[in-house]
Amino acid sequence: VTDIHATAPTDGHLPLHQVGVSGVKKPLSIHRPERVVTLGATFSVAVDLPADRKGSDLSRNAVLLAEVIDASIHEPPSSLEAACGRIARELLVRHPYASRSRAEAWADYFLLRGIAPDRRSLEDFRLFAEAVATRDAAGRVTVGRSVGAEAVGMTACPCAMETCRDQLAVEYPLLNDPSLRDLPMVTHNQRNRTRLMFELPEGAEVEVDDIIDAIEAAQSSPTYHILKRGDEARAVIAAHRNPKFVEDVLRGLLTSLPGRFPSLPDSVGVRAHTTSEESIHKYDVAAEHVTSMGELRVSGASRAA
Amino acid sequence: VTDIHATAPTDGHLPLHQVGVSGVKKPLSIHRPERVVTLGATFSVAVDLPADRKGSDLSRNAVLLAEVIDASIHEPPSSLEAACGRIARELLVRHPYASRSRAEAWADYFLLRGIAPDRRSLEDFRLFAEAVATRDAAGRVTVGRSVGAEAVGMTACPCAMETCRDQLAVEYPLLNDPSLRDLPMVTHNQRNRTRLMFELPEGAEVEVDDIIDAIEAAQSSPTYHILKRGDEARAVIAAHRNPKFVEDVLRGLLTSLPGRFPSLPDSVGVRAHTTSEESIHKYDVAAEHVTSMGELRVSGASRAA
Amino acid sequence: VTDIHATAPTDGHLPLHQVGVSGVKKPLSIHRPERVVTLGATFSVAVDLPADRKGSDLSRNAVLLAEVIDASIHEPPSSLEAACGRIARELLVRHPYASRSRAEAWADYFLLRGIAPDRRSLEDFRLFAEAVATRDAAGRVTVGRSVGAEAVGMTACPCAMETCRDQLAVEYPLLNDPSLRDLPMVTHNQRNRTRLMFELPEGAEVEVDDIIDAIEAAQSSPTYHILKRGDEARAVIAAHRNPKFVEDVLRGLLTSLPGRFPSLPDSVGVRAHTTSEESIHKYDVAAEHVTSMGELRVSGASRAA
Amino acid sequence: VTDIHATAPTDGHLPLHQVGVSGVKKPLSIHRPERVVTLGATFSVAVDLPADRKGSDLSRNAVLLAEVIDASIHEPPSSLEAACGRIARELLVRHPYASRSRAEAWADYFLLRGIAPDRRSLEDFRLFAEAVATRDAAGRVTVGRSVGAEAVGMTACPCAMETCRDQLAVEYPLLNDPSLRDLPMVTHNQRNRTRLMFELPEGAEVEVDDIIDAIEAAQSSPTYHILKRGDEARAVIAAHRNPKFVEDVLRGLLTSLPGRFPSLPDSVGVRAHTTSEESIHKYDVAAEHVTSMGELRVSGASRAA
Repeated sequence: VTDIHATAPTDGHLPLHQVGVSGVKKPLSIHRPERVVTLGATFSVAVDLPADRKGSDLSRNAVLLAEVIDASIHEPPSSLEAACGRIARELLVRHPYASRSRAEAWADYFLLRGIAPDRRSLEDFRLFAEAVATRDAAGRVTVGRSVGAEAVGMTACPCAMETCRDQLAVEYPLLNDPSLRDLPMVTHNQRNRTRLMFELPEGAEVEVDDIIDAIEAAQSSPTYHILKRGDEARAVIAAHRNPKFVEDVLRGLLTSLPGRFPSLPDSVGVRAHTTSEESIHKYDVAAEHVTSMGELRVSGASRAA
Repeated sequence: VTDIHATAPTDGHLPLHQVGVSGVKKPLSIHRPERVVTLGATFSVAVDLPADRKGSDLSRNAVLLAEVIDASIHEPPSSLEAACGRIARELLVRHPYASRSRAEAWADYFLLRGIAPDRRSLEDFRLFAEAVATRDAAGRVTVGRSVGAEAVGMTACPCAMETCRDQLAVEYPLLNDPSLRDLPMVTHNQRNRTRLMFELPEGAEVEVDDIIDAIEAAQSSPTYHILKRGDEARAVIAAHRNPKFVEDVLRGLLTSLPGRFPSLPDSVGVRAHTTSEESIHKYDVAAEHVTSMGELRVSGASRAA
Repeated sequence: VTDIHATAPTDGHLPLHQVGVSGVKKPLSIHRPERVVTLGATFSVAVDLPADRKGSDLSRNAVLLAEVIDASIHEPPSSLEAACGRIARELLVRHPYASRSRAEAWADYFLLRGIAPDRRSLEDFRLFAEAVATRDAAGRVTVGRSVGAEAVGMTACPCAMETCRDQLAVEYPLLNDPSLRDLPMVTHNQRNRTRLMFELPEGAEVEVDDIIDAIEAAQSSPTYHILKRGDEARAVIAAHRNPKFVEDVLRGLLTSLPGRFPSLPDSVGVRAHTTSEESIHKYDVAAEHVTSMGELRVSGASRAA
Repeated sequence: VTDIHATAPTDGHLPLHQVGVSGVKKPLSIHRPERVVTLGATFSVAVDLPADRKGSDLSRNAVLLAEVIDASIHEPPSSLEAACGRIARELLVRHPYASRSRAEAWADYFLLRGIAPDRRSLEDFRLFAEAVATRDAAGRVTVGRSVGAEAVGMTACPCAMETCRDQLAVEYPLLNDPSLRDLPMVTHNQRNRTRLMFELPEGAEVEVDDIIDAIEAAQSSPTYHILKRGDEARAVIAAHRNPKFVEDVLRGLLTSLPGRFPSLPDSVGVRAHTTSEESIHKYDVAAEHVTSMGELRVSGASRAA
């Protein structure tokens, strides 16, 4: 039987950047500090294709994914990005004609969270991981990985808060009393989704739980599964004492990274995106930025100076 | 050539309730007061299938949809549900073996909205329509239609507002001053989606713009595309003076219907659903109710008594 | 502090059918034969609300869900529907003013599948569960549960197969040779999603793995994660020897149920839905039917007679 | 009243790449050859933000979008990308502190399609457009635009076709007869989505209808809304005589571009992505490539040499 994939292309002799499978759902066990958890992960994996080959051997991708999942049961990798790194590296073994491979995955992820110790329950976050392996002319393979997370929190608008204070002070002159100067004032608040990704050179590691902590600290307030009546007020008041535009969320998150991740080298890439699903609009407000740990350190140092 | 659809079933002699096509996108022109608008509508149409026939002639559904769309260019129907009604009725002509047909559609829909006359712009709502045609033993066809809409608005939580007031009054005793008794107080507010559907007997008509008005009136505040700085404060303050649980939104909407739609007969069915995409939770809060205009009138009369 | 939820309604004295939380993601451990698996489940839970109460105590829903998830770690329930049943029953304890509760959930679910023993890997299916608890005037609570699953498979169209055979026989007269009479012929084939739900009275149980087996047996062929070259041909030829309209899939599935689930009582409700994401159309083809085990048995017996 | 947006940042003095609104739905009229059509478009627009400013004036984005929509009623732009270009340019006027703006949009789009002249109906495609405006130090603004489309078609797998032929020839020796050498053979076929985007320098124009034609020509066959019985066979046989991997679809599409768009300059960027929603797998197969008209011309010339 002819291997059609290995024959010459019929539709043009172009090399292609990526050919692979996407949307492959698998249960992946990973080893967290003190426990093993199973992620319901969705994978996309691909390799490049040289100009003189008609097709990529896609069944090898499915076999490899199955092997990695099987192995994770007995020897769980430390993280989703570790699994992607292993897959990307191994893709280049299984596709000898390829010089670049890519494995990416996302999964829901649960952490204990609560506004107080006796309110804690497992709340949902989302993990993202990606690994790109490249093989140079000498056959040496290097693997870069990206790791990130998304957390849902709350933002309260600082601008509407001031205009509400101004409008209400006309009607309620007592609001001008100095004792009420910092009274939390009504504004619109909303569900905010913020995502932070690190692009890591070989050897660098980041703990996703720390990424999630960094995101939640940059929003007006975290959100919670369990809020009894008094708790609601505490969360609302805390958010209104910490009003944030999407711009503020992004800047606060990014400028916190040098302090939170001191051991990450300057070459680490950083991508951040935040969306506020506005309560007063039918559309969303969003901000994004791409930078590096080195740039963030320089920028922080210049402000400190 | 054998018509395979018309042969005897091969996998069991069961009648089937619905066989058809779904997710068919078409541009439908409809005639609104003073203008013609084009909806990007998504249709699903189906008929029942008798036990002795293998398949439904699905190409007839696609031909019929194309004909209705073509005709709408020259003679636009008055509404999405009028188009569905025509399709449902005609499905029984094209499928002589069927005794029940169903046509449903949804479409984004735009209305001029604004917090002030000079702030108006086209904002997005969503329309839903459905028609069910039934043919009795004597061959007589009756068509029932449903029509509805969804509007995105804002809700402010009345409970957190009270607990915030209590907690803040401890810290700011001046809040106990009688002049501040009705000062709008911080709470969580969020994007709310509310849908209302009417099930209409033959002859009854409802204007979707009136449905959208009814929904927006039941939320804490409408949302707006354009809000300049002072406008934001007006919308926020209005919402906080009108705090609503999802329960309140649903009840306010339903109890307003007898007054808003006095000519609808008691037999008209009513379905309402509302979701608040909570700003302090990672999940949504939702409420729904199914009733009739008759029940709503009795309930309103008993309260008035 | 006033409990606002317990006060009188402000927007109308209507009872409401359902008030609750939706889209709550939690990791649920369940006990399968020979192993414990963790499902990434999404829950919606709700209770009814009497006319004289403003709001439902929604924080109780979140607390209850957290407790059930916690308990599942140490004592995993036997199934997603068992967890829903427990939640629905407990909702009526936590909401003493309610007389009806509902808990529903879905989750991705993985089973070992393969076209041959050495091709097996974990493939993805989807589970659905629902439980409704009702409390009668005497305070007695009954719980009905629904359980179901969705499987992705392949369908090959029997009609296009015949018309292709006819058209090709004109060009290739040798196709009329008796030895080629049952040669599998080209047609369009596509991804098919079929869902089967059982509504169970108290005491009745169904194993979801058996539901998935029933669905896969009714499609032209299952689909597989791992197919090496020869395997692909086997799957394709098998599907083309077993061509199915959506009507055939649904009838084949439904008529197989009395044989596959002989111990289920006649009162068990059955809902089935199938969608073929057509390869030759931009839209889908779908069929659905609602019946009961009793009706399916009568219908099968009458055919057998 | 203080303009909070114009104050100094509170969470760090970082410049941000993009701040804006997303998911804004609007009905946009555009002028097509011989007719005006209304697109239900979804816009996202953003500008960069300098390090010394707290917030972006987002209400200006909403006002601008409303103005462009209003103007389109009386003077419809020629295309979605023309509208985006105008928005991007004007964003820099409304945000004097910004040096880079971005406007992107997508919309369903309908064209008359049919397997024969009397089978034509409006079928759905999708348009994508993007414009990026940059202001240099001298205040000169340049606008780059991207324009693209996605079309759903059908692919038939060339590999499974050969292995099916081999396996069936064992069982049906007559298949080895020379007269049956090119008999279309069973394989798996599926829904394919292919997207092509051009990045255009100022002045260059592409007609989206030509993009859609190019995509459909590269798939095994277009798909159709209306296919009567004989038509289905014609489409199926055509697809099986033109089997395509995703690799083939992508290469065929890309290598056709120099011939189809001879007037586009070499500097035009080209991005192509294709996904086959496999009928024999639960997951998708995908390929993508990024190149330029210049590269495609060189590559084509070297092959022709």
